[in-house]
Amino acid sequence: MPRRAQASPEHDALRPSPQVRKCLLSDNMRILSVGGTGTLGTAVGETLRARGHELLTVGRKSGDFQADMTDPTEVGRVFDEAGPLDAVVSAAGSVPYKRLTEMTPEDYLSAYRGKVAGQIELVRQGTSRIAARGSFTLITGVLSREPIVTGSAAALANGAVESFVLAAALEIAPQRINAVSPTVFTESLDQYGDFFPGYPPVPLAEAAQAYVRSVEGGETGKIFRLPV
Amino acid sequence: MPRRAQASPEHDALRPSPQVRKCLLSDNMRILSVGGTGTLGTAVGETLRARGHELLTVGRKSGDFQADMTDPTEVGRVFDEAGPLDAVVSAAGSVPYKRLTEMTPEDYLSAYRGKVAGQIELVRQGTSRIAARGSFTLITGVLSREPIVTGSAAALANGAVESFVLAAALEIAPQRINAVSPTVFTESLDQYGDFFPGYPPVPLAEAAQAYVRSVEGGETGKIFRLPV
Repeated sequence: MPRRAQASPEHDALRPSPQVRKCLLSDNMRILSVGGTGTLGTAVGETLRARGHELLTVGRKSGDFQADMTDPTEVGRVFDEAGPLDAVVSAAGSVPYKRLTEMTPEDYLSAYRGKVAGQIELVRQGTSRIAARGSFTLITGVLSREPIVTGSAAALANGAVESFVLAAALEIAPQRINAVSPTVFTESLDQYGDFFPGYPPVPLAEAAQAYVRSVEGGETGKIFRLPV
Repeated sequence: MPRRAQASPEHDALRPSPQVRKCLLSDNMRILSVGGTGTLGTAVGETLRARGHELLTVGRKSGDFQADMTDPTEVGRVFDEAGPLDAVVSAAGSVPYKRLTEMTPEDYLSAYRGKVAGQIELVRQGTSRIAARGSFTLITGVLSREPIVTGSAAALANGAVESFVLAAALEIAPQRINAVSPTVFTESLDQYGDFFPGYPPVPLAEAAQAYVRSVEGGETGKIFRLPV
């Protein structure tokens, strides 16, 4: 632990100005949490709230705002109703799992709509609405790089979002954008473990810390692969 | 250069059986070349033809088959008309280039339709139609990993295809699938060089060699990043 500096005139002179301090300040952010009522979203929300942030949750049928965030009009409505925001965190996305030979063109399109288009729309519309140094944190997953059988639509969606994050980071600075890309959650092993044979699971708490790092830190264009 | 082995009974005994030889044989393949009439497709086709393969080209308005390969029905028609195939190579895909804030949801969807859905459809329909040890070689590009301003839709599309390739490789074996992921072509620097400031360009001939490696080799689930 670093020793706390003693107050002194010299120290005061080194303090950031109120303007700079505003940029560095990491507590009391107002954060829109899309998918904030799901398993991951709930864990992320609890962690961010415990750090002093205000969370506004969006879910299909619960949360502070009910909306289908795959619909650009709904995304716009939620931004309108939410008011000023410092950050957007997303834990929302659904894709079909089937063998490639059982997939249809509509299945792949549904993966695009279910996990890619909605998250892109958060950024596309959000960049003009969140704080000048605000951030976006999107959700992807391990299947972009270490696939499983039946995971070709998930891979497509995760790969699309991760590459979009790299590209978007160039254009939205000083706003920031990162992605969290976990394997299966330890807490979900009973339900999904068989899909990820031998994959190291990641505790929800560790995934939530990646959101904290993305929201409060200065990094951008990063894919936080979990477990580390 | 390895010394050529002398013919001998011992050597004959080591020769692959006709069945195995059939698997290893790399000449006289019958190859469907989608986008085969474009700049890259033409170079790939010339290189593969020079190696003894038969090329069947597909283009929107030229080639052996005219078709819009973003339409699943058209893809099926081309496969029906083409008959037996050993490999499919794709050099086709178009995406919009604009600043993120100028993109619309339809722009991103058009990138999905223009470069992702059609190439996936080649694999989804093709796996039941090409040879048991046949291969697919798709086109992506450097923007999935090293983006440029105005390249967020291209990044999305390339990232989607590359992750799909990794996932599909698991499911279609012993058929194979790879992607070729080049920077800007040396021959296209006049036209596109300004979009890739300082990026090392890649000669078309080198890109064509990556297709040769994918088609004639045994690798699968690989992204051939160019220049190497």
